[in-house]
Amino acid sequence: MTGSAEIICVGTELLLGDILNTNAQYLAQQLANLGIAHHYQTVVGDNPLRLARAIAIACERARLIIFTGGLGPTPDDLTTATIADFFGVPLVENADVLADITAKFAQRGRTMTANNRKQALLPEGADVLPNPQGTAPGLLWQPRSGLHLMTFPGVPRELYAMWNATAISYVQAQGWSQGIIHSRTLKFWGTSESGLAAKVDDFLKLENPTVAPYASDGVIKLRISAKAKSMEAAQQLIAPVAQQLKQIGGDDCFGEDNETLGHAVGQLLRARQSTLAVAESCTGGGLGAMITSVPGSSAYFMGGVIAYDNRIKANLLGVSSQTLAEQGAVSAIVAEQMAVGVRQQLATDWGISITGIAGPDGGSGDKPVGLVYIGIANALETRHLECRFGRTKDREWIRLMSRNTALDVLRRMLLGQN
Amino acid sequence: MTGSAEIICVGTELLLGDILNTNAQYLAQQLANLGIAHHYQTVVGDNPLRLARAIAIACERARLIIFTGGLGPTPDDLTTATIADFFGVPLVENADVLADITAKFAQRGRTMTANNRKQALLPEGADVLPNPQGTAPGLLWQPRSGLHLMTFPGVPRELYAMWNATAISYVQAQGWSQGIIHSRTLKFWGTSESGLAAKVDDFLKLENPTVAPYASDGVIKLRISAKAKSMEAAQQLIAPVAQQLKQIGGDDCFGEDNETLGHAVGQLLRARQSTLAVAESCTGGGLGAMITSVPGSSAYFMGGVIAYDNRIKANLLGVSSQTLAEQGAVSAIVAEQMAVGVRQQLATDWGISITGIAGPDGGSGDKPVGLVYIGIANALETRHLECRFGRTKDREWIRLMSRNTALDVLRRMLLGQN
Repeated sequence: MTGSAEIICVGTELLLGDILNTNAQYLAQQLANLGIAHHYQTVVGDNPLRLARAIAIACERARLIIFTGGLGPTPDDLTTATIADFFGVPLVENADVLADITAKFAQRGRTMTANNRKQALLPEGADVLPNPQGTAPGLLWQPRSGLHLMTFPGVPRELYAMWNATAISYVQAQGWSQGIIHSRTLKFWGTSESGLAAKVDDFLKLENPTVAPYASDGVIKLRISAKAKSMEAAQQLIAPVAQQLKQIGGDDCFGEDNETLGHAVGQLLRARQSTLAVAESCTGGGLGAMITSVPGSSAYFMGGVIAYDNRIKANLLGVSSQTLAEQGAVSAIVAEQMAVGVRQQLATDWGISITGIAGPDGGSGDKPVGLVYIGIANALETRHLECRFGRTKDREWIRLMSRNTALDVLRRMLLGQN
Repeated sequence: MTGSAEIICVGTELLLGDILNTNAQYLAQQLANLGIAHHYQTVVGDNPLRLARAIAIACERARLIIFTGGLGPTPDDLTTATIADFFGVPLVENADVLADITAKFAQRGRTMTANNRKQALLPEGADVLPNPQGTAPGLLWQPRSGLHLMTFPGVPRELYAMWNATAISYVQAQGWSQGIIHSRTLKFWGTSESGLAAKVDDFLKLENPTVAPYASDGVIKLRISAKAKSMEAAQQLIAPVAQQLKQIGGDDCFGEDNETLGHAVGQLLRARQSTLAVAESCTGGGLGAMITSVPGSSAYFMGGVIAYDNRIKANLLGVSSQTLAEQGAVSAIVAEQMAVGVRQQLATDWGISITGIAGPDGGSGDKPVGLVYIGIANALETRHLECRFGRTKDREWIRLMSRNTALDVLRRMLLGQN
């Protein structure tokens, strides 16, 4: 038997359906990447008796038990105490952890309470699984020979940081891996899931690597997954398939894995030593936020104007008041004037603009909710794109589609500048 | 013992982390709404032996077992066969189901395969749980006295339709309901989870309603959940507790349930007929995006300037170039000048600004990553706040904390204007 893993997620909020169990998905992906067999996941509430029963079952069928949740400072956070109790070991205060928690509170200028002291307790003999992002560390413990436990807080970003900094190398060192499963995901904009699937039909029947299409937030993805003895072998299986799929996808393929349209545009602007400014109405700053989520974006992004009110469009961007009155703020000509205006005001090579009706109110017969105009200007030309994202879609969907479409328009124009 | 429920989700794709388990959340919410206790969820792969073991465990601790997944036509869909086998009952072809599947294929002009015939098999004695949206029906079965099973396909849309059309009334008819569970969540900013928990310590021991603290994205929450015969009764249990908790929380409590700091600020600005503009550096437009995610925000939000580059801070906001050179862009005085400048440029009552180091690069000894200045100006005064969000935090966390803190500063000043 290899070191098969079980994930136990602790939290009444999961049993009430208050939150989605994204931690289980993250850990499942990570275990697959490391080639660790993983046969069961259990969700249990903040109840020590039921948690103890879940531990008893997991001990029978797994060698590695990964806990999430229940490490916080409040009385309903009882994962550590329940584990210690189950294995009949006392909790002891860890001086290093206490010093670390105390320092973190001091650094943030906050008062530490008695509750926080509880987070420094670990079962006797357990090691600390350090938490670089928050106060509560986890534990790393072999309570009996051949059984390994790890605990993580329920807060996803803390879990990710702890997993990457400590848990991966721990798991790898155990020699449990049955080879690895590695994936690369190609990302597309400007096509539909079924349309892309039809084009790459033959690839969907492959067995190693497999190719699976899916869609999220308007981005279409093809995930290529290979099983192999090593990462290098998996990459060699994936590479030729990825290359062929990219060729079929053409300009619709904008990136891979964690790359966004913001990254794609950033790379192109950087390569061309060009600068960009944005003028946003219905997206309210979201396009700028997306562009600046890329570290180092200050190399090409100068800034922009959030022109939510029409007076701002006129006063700061030089949009004609007459045009605003005659054509309305949601019009092709206003989008173009916004793009031209922001480019001039901020002295950049490119200006892009968004003006539209994100709803739920403000739509009319000829200008329904979901109507959005994107403007784009450089030194040589000014263009616009009219989009209809659907009058039944919600505000956040329309704003999201607007941001991504604006970046995609710019991306294709930059690609054309080869 | 009441009819406590267990959810068993079947699918190797869940164990590989390929998909997020939204079905478990949906069913958990539904069970809570119906007042059905629900203590465990289990995820298991497409493996008959392991599924049988999970069934054996669930039979010991639940009276209602709800299965999702594994009802499709392909060889790895084995939920129905495994259940029949576990209880020692043969599978029989259900003529009505077969006729229904045949009719659905004919209607779509598709050829029915031998695989699809498998979907008409049910354990002897089990009832059909009809699937109005797809080909695979589920089952509804009492294999032994006091044990109820339900199966659903993994496709969320089909599961929802089947749950609503058949399962809800079945569950209600069993008389298991302990009434309903209703929750209200109070939201806080400017306190820590442990600090708030210490203040409301006595409430955390309540049994009905219960009060549970948790934290996400820097927002601290108290969820008040009541079990009662009816919604009205639950609301009556919650109301006095909510009122007391709000009193204890004071100004830290900014809203409930789906309300954000953006909603809170919006309500206050609307009530005071005041207008707002923003000047953003490191958040790149994210503050404006957050404010405008509230429908109707055009009543008080005029727009802003994304001053990512220092030239934009000087040219569009009137920040002194000398100050920028001497104090740096990340300084209290620049934050104040940005707030004053955007308020003047956009002719609003309030101006708020953010300038900081979001990282991962750009930090230094005296100006580390996570150092952020927030400026705020109205006709009478200009203030700033220095924040240190931690040099180990990631870019998106620092940007998120900056946006929320800026809104919270404005909220507290607006509250002071009673």
